[in-house]
Amino acid sequence: MTKEYNVAILGATGAVGTRMIEQLEQSTIPVKNVKLLASARSAGKKLKFKGEELTVEETTPESFDGIDIVLSSAGGAVSKKFLPEAVKRGAVCVDNTSAFRMEPDVPLVVPEVNSEALKNHHGIIANPNCSTIQMVMALEPVRRKFGLKQIIVSTYQAASGAGQAALDELAKEAQDYLDGKDMQEDAHILPTKGDKKHYPLAFNLLPQIDVLEDSGYSHEEWKMIHETKKIMLGDMNSPEIKVTATCVRVPVPISHGESVYFTVKDESATAQDIMDAVAAFPGNVLEDDIKNQIYPQPINAVGKRETFVGRIRPDYENKGAFNMWVVADNLLKGAAWNTVENAEYLVKMNLI
Amino acid sequence: MTKEYNVAILGATGAVGTRMIEQLEQSTIPVKNVKLLASARSAGKKLKFKGEELTVEETTPESFDGIDIVLSSAGGAVSKKFLPEAVKRGAVCVDNTSAFRMEPDVPLVVPEVNSEALKNHHGIIANPNCSTIQMVMALEPVRRKFGLKQIIVSTYQAASGAGQAALDELAKEAQDYLDGKDMQEDAHILPTKGDKKHYPLAFNLLPQIDVLEDSGYSHEEWKMIHETKKIMLGDMNSPEIKVTATCVRVPVPISHGESVYFTVKDESATAQDIMDAVAAFPGNVLEDDIKNQIYPQPINAVGKRETFVGRIRPDYENKGAFNMWVVADNLLKGAAWNTVENAEYLVKMNLI
Repeated sequence: MTKEYNVAILGATGAVGTRMIEQLEQSTIPVKNVKLLASARSAGKKLKFKGEELTVEETTPESFDGIDIVLSSAGGAVSKKFLPEAVKRGAVCVDNTSAFRMEPDVPLVVPEVNSEALKNHHGIIANPNCSTIQMVMALEPVRRKFGLKQIIVSTYQAASGAGQAALDELAKEAQDYLDGKDMQEDAHILPTKGDKKHYPLAFNLLPQIDVLEDSGYSHEEWKMIHETKKIMLGDMNSPEIKVTATCVRVPVPISHGESVYFTVKDESATAQDIMDAVAAFPGNVLEDDIKNQIYPQPINAVGKRETFVGRIRPDYENKGAFNMWVVADNLLKGAAWNTVENAEYLVKMNLI
Repeated sequence: MTKEYNVAILGATGAVGTRMIEQLEQSTIPVKNVKLLASARSAGKKLKFKGEELTVEETTPESFDGIDIVLSSAGGAVSKKFLPEAVKRGAVCVDNTSAFRMEPDVPLVVPEVNSEALKNHHGIIANPNCSTIQMVMALEPVRRKFGLKQIIVSTYQAASGAGQAALDELAKEAQDYLDGKDMQEDAHILPTKGDKKHYPLAFNLLPQIDVLEDSGYSHEEWKMIHETKKIMLGDMNSPEIKVTATCVRVPVPISHGESVYFTVKDESATAQDIMDAVAAFPGNVLEDDIKNQIYPQPINAVGKRETFVGRIRPDYENKGAFNMWVVADNLLKGAAWNTVENAEYLVKMNLI
């Protein structure tokens, strides 16, 4: 008899949480019962799982009694508070927040890239940052085949990375702008909720995602640098691949774009070789047909689980150097789907 | 007695042309008479120069009789047809199109960077591409002080770079999106007028500006590479500074953003040194105060002549390597102002 799992979704009412429900509905995990958890404010809300209406409950430590799998996307503080309680009660947690990503004994996993790391889990698996996930999806096949020396990335990140409220803020600002009204008074969340100043994103660009640190880098940029090293090399400070990042929020609701410049060890690699490697990697879709103007676009990636890669071309002045353009749905491969996919791998690999 | 000049503005009714009129009103050039020229379709339109109503005339070779200075932004084909006629009649032309930029005997000039090149003109001076201008403004002070080895740029380019019709298209698409309507049928111009397929830009990203060429690069990317070399080094194919570019159209009406990664020859340079050099360069404004969330934003640059630079920080894993973020009004410093400014320099330098 197939084992069936009791699954709790923590932060079930958010932009990522609602998509975790959908992704779990479509997943291969044999689900016995689903429990939807959120803050007191959202408790009582009704949401459906496979047609069945479920009532969202307020999270308490006891919520996790009898739970096998926790999928969490309720913010770092909530994960820090409750996931150890869930682990204590025997659950395995896949956490979409940044709370545990840099803990040495917590695997940070994009299943197609480093599912082997799941074997070392101690009850918590961290889902990487959205912008990191799609970049390592595009680059891992290159690393495996040709070796990677350096990554220089500039991101074009969607508003939904900052949650449903940021999405609503973008829509309100856009309408006010089109009506000739001032957008400044609409800006309460972006560039980042906890910071002092807020700026409009509609018809604008904000080169700040998360807080700006003394290093000169934003915390989002820091994450891209160190998460990439941890996922690809198992060490967040590995000097083997040099990584630098510039993260910019753009007035797009869903799906991040990334302009990625990279250099490979095997300088005999051609752009066609890179394309072939990317296309053959599970979870990637090559959209690179410049004669027919085919390249990844955010509006085409919304609702898809795949990572879309195109505009692959050599830097003609530097051997072994290439540019590429990467797009993925930040709420799915960048969050909800990668989380559920990690849980699927845990089940398939008998690690739960 | 100060010499006064008869000035013709070719393409006077476009997004750049109307701004050329404004910039000429505010310029130091002693203007005797202004003639506004356009296609037959726009002839008869009324526009003001310093409060005086002028009627737009259809362009003919004879339009340039008695003209001293031509400011042109009517498209490459129009420039190619009429500017030699104007030169024949004794005028000096500053051309904002790409028609003559790569002619060896046509100076390609950003006045703060390479005004000396104006001395070699033979009647036509080319204004560089908008995305190139703001990048060389930010990097020239770095090149002079520390030497430049490599530039890797990813652009975030505004719709107005494709003209007034693209601006209107973006606004229509944005309203339709907010109303839940399909945007696809609004897309007639972007990514680039002459190409086969058109895609919506509102709430989307288009990694194509100008046509995509067999090299894998778009023509806009090609321009950034070769114009940068011609402006900084006097040779469009100079290997001295290596340049690569990824150009992306973003749903912003006016002002381009650029994420610029660069390496310098003098590896003792610090981020503070770079900031000091940028800030001291005429035409640049340093907006780099991360503690107070100060960095360049498109909505703040609109209507300004300056180039705004911020987020300057070292790549901690590569000596002599830095990231920066550059924003400028693509219709002013990227087009109308740089054109008028070139004419101001021609007057000041007695080259007209």
